[in-house]
Amino acid sequence: MRLKHVKGAGIKIENSKYIVLNYNCYKGIWKKAFNNNNPIHIEIGMGKGDFLIGMAMKYPNINFIGIEKYDSVIVRAIEKLDNYELPNIRLIRMDASKIEDVFSSEIDVIYLNFSDPWPKKRHEHRRLTSKNFLEKYDNLFKENHHIIQKTDNRNLFEFSLMSFVNNEYKINDISLDLHNSGYIENIETEYEHKFASVGNPIYMVDVQK
Amino acid sequence: MRLKHVKGAGIKIENSKYIVLNYNCYKGIWKKAFNNNNPIHIEIGMGKGDFLIGMAMKYPNINFIGIEKYDSVIVRAIEKLDNYELPNIRLIRMDASKIEDVFSSEIDVIYLNFSDPWPKKRHEHRRLTSKNFLEKYDNLFKENHHIIQKTDNRNLFEFSLMSFVNNEYKINDISLDLHNSGYIENIETEYEHKFASVGNPIYMVDVQK
Repeated sequence: MRLKHVKGAGIKIENSKYIVLNYNCYKGIWKKAFNNNNPIHIEIGMGKGDFLIGMAMKYPNINFIGIEKYDSVIVRAIEKLDNYELPNIRLIRMDASKIEDVFSSEIDVIYLNFSDPWPKKRHEHRRLTSKNFLEKYDNLFKENHHIIQKTDNRNLFEFSLMSFVNNEYKINDISLDLHNSGYIENIETEYEHKFASVGNPIYMVDVQK
Repeated sequence: MRLKHVKGAGIKIENSKYIVLNYNCYKGIWKKAFNNNNPIHIEIGMGKGDFLIGMAMKYPNINFIGIEKYDSVIVRAIEKLDNYELPNIRLIRMDASKIEDVFSSEIDVIYLNFSDPWPKKRHEHRRLTSKNFLEKYDNLFKENHHIIQKTDNRNLFEFSLMSFVNNEYKINDISLDLHNSGYIENIETEYEHKFASVGNPIYMVDVQK
């Protein structure tokens, strides 16, 4: 994603009621942030938030936490959220590499949408579906380990399938062309919307262990 | 595949030196058919034989057995084989549903190329990657259970990936667009050659358990 500098983003983010600044303090007790026992789904790399907001509106009985490291995109999500009252959304501004410091045995689903493909072999461990990250996620889940990935990047998807399966995940569902597979339930990310209109396939896999 | 009636195919097949008519008699002792201890790879649904012949020429130290039920296509493979002297090929004319009567703990690799997708849900058990067939294959393999599939059929490939993984196979390698993945080792089937020239993706997966 090409990043622009957004003037005043830092202050806008810190003042948002959706942002959790002291996110390390909620490790293991995220239900307190929502004051209920509903399932918690997280999106790592939420970008400008279209998917997270769409899901939160559609599923009011699920709590959604979006994680994003870049101020210039998370601020766009916050601007959108100003138009809604969504008590089931929280946002965290952080790098995903520290994720095991933030959650513990409390997550039901992780969404990975259009993650950075890190195409170079030497950066493989930075891909959000690498063994490195799958091992971090192991500590996050409540019961079932459940990950849903979407991407348009063929190499990342091939890598991810191998990584999931070789780390004991089974496949609940898969689509090699999501927008031509009869899925009517799909909530698009802003990137997906732009990309799919070009006609290239969107890949999706839903895995569990 | 659209099948034509080929006049005299039956006799031509039965007279070919490549055809094994008493194939049930070799169960567990297929190495006797080749008079060596080389690995044995089989292709189920070999069609007109381009892949099998190409592989046999490329790998003279591997024995290849092609299985095909339709006279009208196996006869085309036999006509091609008349041009070569390939001691590492044998052909069997049979329906794959009886495959566990023909081999026992002696196969190293199974190839499934452009298998019939059997698109209707009620025919799922006929797909060569269904649980039904994977259980038959379990008895065929010598040590590692190793299957390599190619197809252009997206639904069959999605189904196959789920079936392999949910039956304990791991993924050695995968390509969602084989002809644009830098694979130079690929031996094409006659169907693949025709299909890939249209520009649609060929899917490949190499699985093992």
